[in-house]
Amino acid sequence: MAFSRYTAKDVAEMERFTRVTFGNTLSGMRSPFLVGTKGPLGTNLAIFNSIVHIGANPMLLGMIFRPDTVERHTLQNIHRSKIYTLNIVSQDILGAAHMTSANYPENVSEFEACGFNEKYRNDFEAPFVEESPLQMALEFREELIISSNQTRLLIGEVLDIYVREEAVSPRGEILHETLESAVVSGLDAYYSVKKVAEMPYARPQ
Amino acid sequence: MAFSRYTAKDVAEMERFTRVTFGNTLSGMRSPFLVGTKGPLGTNLAIFNSIVHIGANPMLLGMIFRPDTVERHTLQNIHRSKIYTLNIVSQDILGAAHMTSANYPENVSEFEACGFNEKYRNDFEAPFVEESPLQMALEFREELIISSNQTRLLIGEVLDIYVREEAVSPRGEILHETLESAVVSGLDAYYSVKKVAEMPYARPQ
Repeated sequence: MAFSRYTAKDVAEMERFTRVTFGNTLSGMRSPFLVGTKGPLGTNLAIFNSIVHIGANPMLLGMIFRPDTVERHTLQNIHRSKIYTLNIVSQDILGAAHMTSANYPENVSEFEACGFNEKYRNDFEAPFVEESPLQMALEFREELIISSNQTRLLIGEVLDIYVREEAVSPRGEILHETLESAVVSGLDAYYSVKKVAEMPYARPQ
Repeated sequence: MAFSRYTAKDVAEMERFTRVTFGNTLSGMRSPFLVGTKGPLGTNLAIFNSIVHIGANPMLLGMIFRPDTVERHTLQNIHRSKIYTLNIVSQDILGAAHMTSANYPENVSEFEACGFNEKYRNDFEAPFVEESPLQMALEFREELIISSNQTRLLIGEVLDIYVREEAVSPRGEILHETLESAVVSGLDAYYSVKKVAEMPYARPQ
């Protein structure tokens, strides 16, 4: 294999958009989620590529907020209401989900602007995305600030899960190929997935 | 679509392995990386499913360490040496990469036990994985403790990148389908990817 080397200095000297694309695609792929919130001016919906598993008992998920981005309505709404929903992005809603990253005014709901239906379930006051095959209700737990670049890690606890009934295996696995869950690299390169292996618990040979 | 509902109480009452699998696969899929370190007893290699993008300038990546896991050799080595490598897991090394999650004694190197070659580049003292098509050199920056469950978020800065030369597009995108990068759901369900869309920058319609 022939490799190209890029030092931090090489990357810093790249053209701005090239540098951002390179930096954002280095960390590989992950599942995007739509984050649903409600604020004083209405509902808000935003796509996030930085959902990370923090714990299984209690079920904690983290989410990264970069400084100075259009994600601020989501963060403000979570600070106020302490609740939000996470809705996985499947192949059929990928184009509309990506459009939520546009910079809409605060009084415009991305649900309406991008063609999603708000769904309310069991007295939870934040809106779910009806079209998503895996929807979760979360409550804010804590927030940490990364001093290196003022990025925030927001932690929430999963209170309730709604998932397409055929997509949970007998051993408890969420079947992401059945859900047609997308993965994304950087901000705009989307992929479909195909299961290739289910590995046994690893023990020294 | 017919949905199943699982409350936090339903999940807490699941059989232990079912609960862990369910909780670990809820957050979707992400690219696994092999983390290479060096300690007083030799080199160490461990697979991580929790690499998260923190910033592009400087290039910062985060990594989650759960309490009480076999990952402790990696954490100890990073605390001591302040440096480590991240090596993406491609389809051809997936089985061997998964095996690094077995609980080997501290004096056994997972490089040797799992059949990887240590590669040293440009005086960086932590080992790269020669077989990985995307290898990065990182330096420790900071560590945050999530008080909800004592999990740690460790932040490092990317100093150097080695990537297969045909896998960087003219606009700076790392082409993960070309690299044959894997994604994983939970601890053991691995997938291949196929690119379906490259979306334009979103603007309000």
